Amino acid sequence: MIPLPTGPSIFGNAVIAQSGGPTAVINQSLVGCLEELRGFAGVDRIFGARHAVSGMVSDDLIDLTDIPTATLERIANTPSSALGTSRDKPDEEYCERIFEKLAARKIHYFFYIGGNDSSDTCRIISEVARAKGHELRAFHLPKTIDNDLVMNDHTPGFGSAARFVACALMGDSLDNKALPGIKVDVIMGRHAGFLTAASVLARTPAGTGPHLIYVPEATFDLDRFIADVDRIYTREGRCVIAVSEGIHDEKGTPIAVKIAESMNTEVERDAHGNVQLSGSGALGDHLSSLIKERLGSRLRVRADTFGYLQRSFAGCVSASDAREARESGRAAARAAAEGLLEASITIRRTGNDPYAVEYVPVALSEVARKTRTLEPKYIVEGCDIAESFREYAAPLVGDLPILEAL
Amino acid sequence: MIPLPTGPSIFGNAVIAQSGGPTAVINQSLVGCLEELRGFAGVDRIFGARHAVSGMVSDDLIDLTDIPTATLERIANTPSSALGTSRDKPDEEYCERIFEKLAARKIHYFFYIGGNDSSDTCRIISEVARAKGHELRAFHLPKTIDNDLVMNDHTPGFGSAARFVACALMGDSLDNKALPGIKVDVIMGRHAGFLTAASVLARTPAGTGPHLIYVPEATFDLDRFIADVDRIYTREGRCVIAVSEGIHDEKGTPIAVKIAESMNTEVERDAHGNVQLSGSGALGDHLSSLIKERLGSRLRVRADTFGYLQRSFAGCVSASDAREARESGRAAARAAAEGLLEASITIRRTGNDPYAVEYVPVALSEVARKTRTLEPKYIVEGCDIAESFREYAAPLVGDLPILEAL
Repeated sequence: MIPLPTGPSIFGNAVIAQSGGPTAVINQSLVGCLEELRGFAGVDRIFGARHAVSGMVSDDLIDLTDIPTATLERIANTPSSALGTSRDKPDEEYCERIFEKLAARKIHYFFYIGGNDSSDTCRIISEVARAKGHELRAFHLPKTIDNDLVMNDHTPGFGSAARFVACALMGDSLDNKALPGIKVDVIMGRHAGFLTAASVLARTPAGTGPHLIYVPEATFDLDRFIADVDRIYTREGRCVIAVSEGIHDEKGTPIAVKIAESMNTEVERDAHGNVQLSGSGALGDHLSSLIKERLGSRLRVRADTFGYLQRSFAGCVSASDAREARESGRAAARAAAEGLLEASITIRRTGNDPYAVEYVPVALSEVARKTRTLEPKYIVEGCDIAESFREYAAPLVGDLPILEAL
Repeated sequence: MIPLPTGPSIFGNAVIAQSGGPTAVINQSLVGCLEELRGFAGVDRIFGARHAVSGMVSDDLIDLTDIPTATLERIANTPSSALGTSRDKPDEEYCERIFEKLAARKIHYFFYIGGNDSSDTCRIISEVARAKGHELRAFHLPKTIDNDLVMNDHTPGFGSAARFVACALMGDSLDNKALPGIKVDVIMGRHAGFLTAASVLARTPAGTGPHLIYVPEATFDLDRFIADVDRIYTREGRCVIAVSEGIHDEKGTPIAVKIAESMNTEVERDAHGNVQLSGSGALGDHLSSLIKERLGSRLRVRADTFGYLQRSFAGCVSASDAREARESGRAAARAAAEGLLEASITIRRTGNDPYAVEYVPVALSEVARKTRTLEPKYIVEGCDIAESFREYAAPLVGDLPILEAL
């Protein structure tokens, strides 16, 4: 592990920003960081930057220092990024402009809540500031429903999104049992299949679906897929399928991109080069058409794409996820108070019975730009997820509804 | 109102079945009916028919009489139809076969939980039995997320689905505020826009979306739609749109059907002649493409289709909806105990402050095959829903999360 240098006490202002895709608990981290910073003598005013780096570069900051506690509590319980977010990827010149604005505001503490692209942005801004001789202590607070940050047992935001996926598939599996057919459910996850894997939590004695689970860590073969569906449908008279939006062929080309190309649809990319996968039902619809084409046009085949609902749904929050998001915000503020020059606040699991975690600061470069994927031990024959994943994920999603069948 | 004739006490068995689309609370009605029937001396055994009329015609019944109370309570709290369901529409010959099976089982009480197609099935079976000289007392327990049954203030199932829509749009509106763009959300509703209208409940001071709401009760004009989106986007820099799956052109042709035809996709119909609208993202994707085509290909436009999630999601249940579904099941059993020959159990609102309802039995023919649609007073200029709909819907969905913005 890279050692974390500390520095002398400095006194100045702080800025907090939220980046990347919103989650149901990202405001818990914001509030956790803010409330802890208010008790730290090294910090004077605490600002929030609107729309991440965009607000930092345009000096679109709001003063968060004196927001009443009751208001903060409501903000913490509100889904999606209260400060707004952005997917901009700052280059060197952009970072210099940010640094100038921060220096002018006497900001010496920078807290960035986001995923792996965001941890890299955090690292770059901190390095540019240092090179210009402005001390900026930079802290990354992990957040991603994809759960794809290295060095973390799991990341805030994942538990609540996984809870949504589990609750959706619990209901959908019973819906499919009541009115049998073939059902495709497309779940977020570009490179990491954790969220799709969480669909195993939906399996109960009352409803046994999903029967098939496909994650981006395994190559997706269309012929194999059809054979899998045929086998389950023949045996069960129904089939519920959970599919990651990021499934790809043996060359790594996302199936969603292949569909878009075959339909002559332009493929949209963000500043990080990521192809747009969410916000369209095309992948699910394509798989659904394919099943009908290959297994019979009279089959009842349906597809749903969970889309943005899974990351921002109001009222489907995991209690442990909310608590940990809050705590990781507090841990970041404490790391600053202890004199650390930089850190990404990782979550480590220290126990399962009872479930317990600790918050460990690590160097930004240990997390930045790296992508964690689902461990191979959880992937069963490319079309299922091992029950052992349930042990991993269950404490993260909180108590699920207890279902009973006739 | 058609008078409801009563008859002398008869002693026999009862059957309960669930029909049409599942809901989050349809098992509450099953359990309510069952628990009340267990205290009624006129009924011996209480059967459940698997998959609605299919189970009745094939004698696929299970004995529900002695299920322990704790198990029943868990079943009541489980989404989707525990007995299974069907969309078969029985013709005369099918009904004769059902009647024979019921007569052989000494069944004199028939309870059918379903929507308006189901209330008609209930009526037909009851009439065939009567014509054959077999007394079958038939009771319809309303259930539909579409809320489209006449004579009812609202129907069990609607409140929970409306709660899902409100929670989804609360989160999605904040997601869109955090990462601005244009977002299309497609909501269930073939002819009735109640569920889509419930998206007004998502409007809070924290997030003002949806900005536009389109229901099937108003003609959907594509040019007008684009102009509406342009106007909101120009003003707000973002736009969240709630659209019923059943939106149609001035001739009544669903936009979803026009898209399918333009793509040479076969249109699927059920036994009642209804075109498949759910289980595909095509409508949302089409509207999203159209917005890009007309307003700019570089706009961030996304679409989500709520699909089956909105009717069976585990853990997003309205407390008042669950209570009323249970009570309407009990009311049906009481109507049988009181000697009524038939009834549909309607819900009437008797007060708003405090909110209160009563359960009123009416003749099957008053409800069967009729479709209620959203009252014109709620539709604002074809692209919005009046705030007064909030007063109507709020008590039905239960307390919603309290959101706060920065």
